[in-house]
Amino acid sequence: MTGIPIGVFDSGVGGLTVLRALRELMPAENFIYLGDTARLPYGTKSAETVVRYSLQCAAALIRRQVRCLVVACNTASASALDALRVNHPTLPVIGVIEPGAEAAVAASRSQHIAVIATEGTVGGGAYQTAIRRLNPSARVTSRACSLFVSMAEEGWTEGPIAEAVARRYLDPIFHSGDAPDTLVLGCTHFPALAAAIRAALPPEVIIVDSAATTAAAVLDRLHGACASPGVRGTVSWLATDGAARFARVGSAFLGETLHAEAIEIVDL
Amino acid sequence: MTGIPIGVFDSGVGGLTVLRALRELMPAENFIYLGDTARLPYGTKSAETVVRYSLQCAAALIRRQVRCLVVACNTASASALDALRVNHPTLPVIGVIEPGAEAAVAASRSQHIAVIATEGTVGGGAYQTAIRRLNPSARVTSRACSLFVSMAEEGWTEGPIAEAVARRYLDPIFHSGDAPDTLVLGCTHFPALAAAIRAALPPEVIIVDSAATTAAAVLDRLHGACASPGVRGTVSWLATDGAARFARVGSAFLGETLHAEAIEIVDL
Repeated sequence: MTGIPIGVFDSGVGGLTVLRALRELMPAENFIYLGDTARLPYGTKSAETVVRYSLQCAAALIRRQVRCLVVACNTASASALDALRVNHPTLPVIGVIEPGAEAAVAASRSQHIAVIATEGTVGGGAYQTAIRRLNPSARVTSRACSLFVSMAEEGWTEGPIAEAVARRYLDPIFHSGDAPDTLVLGCTHFPALAAAIRAALPPEVIIVDSAATTAAAVLDRLHGACASPGVRGTVSWLATDGAARFARVGSAFLGETLHAEAIEIVDL
Repeated sequence: MTGIPIGVFDSGVGGLTVLRALRELMPAENFIYLGDTARLPYGTKSAETVVRYSLQCAAALIRRQVRCLVVACNTASASALDALRVNHPTLPVIGVIEPGAEAAVAASRSQHIAVIATEGTVGGGAYQTAIRRLNPSARVTSRACSLFVSMAEEGWTEGPIAEAVARRYLDPIFHSGDAPDTLVLGCTHFPALAAAIRAALPPEVIIVDSAATTAAAVLDRLHGACASPGVRGTVSWLATDGAARFARVGSAFLGETLHAEAIEIVDL
C-alpha cells in the first residue's frame, strides 16, 4: 500500500497485455515496465539464455526499487522463475504460468486442456508441469504457434488470413474425437488474436487468457492494491532498443497510445 | 586459392540460402558459417545494435582465420558494412545489398524496382541508396514483409496461407497503374517462399534473389575459386544458441541435412 512501483518485464511488447490487465485491476498503483526489445524474442532461445536475460531484467528493475516482480512473459516464467526467486528471496515474484494453469484447471470439465504458446514454452513443458501439479490426472495437449507472435506484431489480428492461420494450428487439436474443452493462451501476444482464435474454435471451448489471471494473482499476493479512488497511477517505461517501434507496436497491446519520447532506453 | 575458409555470418539460419549459393558456385572452398541465433532477429533492432553485433560476429570469424567475410544478412549488410570495412581494411567484406541492387538495375527495363525486406532493412533505405547510386533516375518501392520470416522458419512456404500472405503484401505494389517490373528479395529468408511470391506476382515481373547474386560477387572478388575438381570443401558450423533448432530449421534453407552435433555453440 505504498507508492513503490510494481516491476513488470517481458522480452518485448507482449507483456503489455499483462500490464493492461494489472492497471485495470489496480488503477492507482505505480508500475515500471521493461521490454527487453534488443534481445526479443525469448521464445526461440535456450533455457540457459532466457534465465540469464531474466536475471538481468530483474536486476535493472530492482535497482530502481520495486515491491513486486511480475514476469509478464511465458518463456521467462517457464524457464527463469525459480532462479529469480532464489536470487531475490524477499521479493514477491509472480509469473504468468501458474495463474493460467490454475484458471484452466478450474474451468475445464473434462480436465483435457490445450495450451498454445511459443516453441520455447511448449518445449519446456511448463504448463504441463503446472497443470499436473494441480491435478495429476489432467491431460495437456500443447502446440507451438510461432506465427501468432509476428501476426500480432504486424497488426494482422483479424480477417481471413488470421483465421486461416488459427485454423491450421487449432483444427488438429480441436477437430478430433477426444478434444480438449479449454484452451490456454500461453503467450502474452495471443490475446491480440483472440477473435480469430475464437472463430477457429468449437463454441463450447473456454479460452483462458493468462494476462487477466496473472493480474488477479498479483492483487492476491500483495494483499490488495493501493486504494486511492480516482487516482491513476504512473507507468515508467524502459526498453533495451527501438523506442519508436516499441511505442508503435505496443500501443495496440496496451490499448492506449504510447509515446516514444516517454520510453527510456537502458543497457542491461 | 588456399584452404583458408571463407567466413559467412547471419543473425540466424536465413544466411544459409547464401551459403548454399556459394557452395554451388565454389564447391571446393572451405567455409565457416556463424549464425547469431541467441540474438536473432536483427531486422527489428536499431542500426547501432546491429553494428555492434556484426563487429562481434566478424571478430569471432577472424579469430579463426578467414580470407573473406560474407555478410549473409540484409539487415547487417544495410547497417554494418562500412563499420566492418573500416575495422578490417585488408579483408574483403561482401554484403548482400550491393550485388542484389546491381542485378536489379541490370534486369529492370522500366527502372522501377520493388524491394521487399525486413522492417530494419526497409527503414534504413539501403537498397534505395544502392540502386540510386547505380542509376540516379531509378525508382524504388519498398515494403517490409515481416511475416515472411516466421513463415519460412515455420516451414509454411507453400499453399493457400503462404499465397494469401504474399498477395496481401504484394498486391498493393504490383496491382497499381504504375507497377515495378522487378522484385528484389531483400531478406535471405525470402527465397524459401519463392513459389508463393511468384504465384502472387504478375508473370512478367522478374525476381532477383540476392543469394545467387552475392555468391557471384564473392567469386569475382576472390578472382576465382579454389579449383580442385571433385573435391567438396568443408563447412565449420558456429551458432550462439540452440544447436537443435539451428539444425532443424536450417536444413530447409541449406537444402541438405544439418546435424546438431556438428554445430559448435560460441559466446560472442
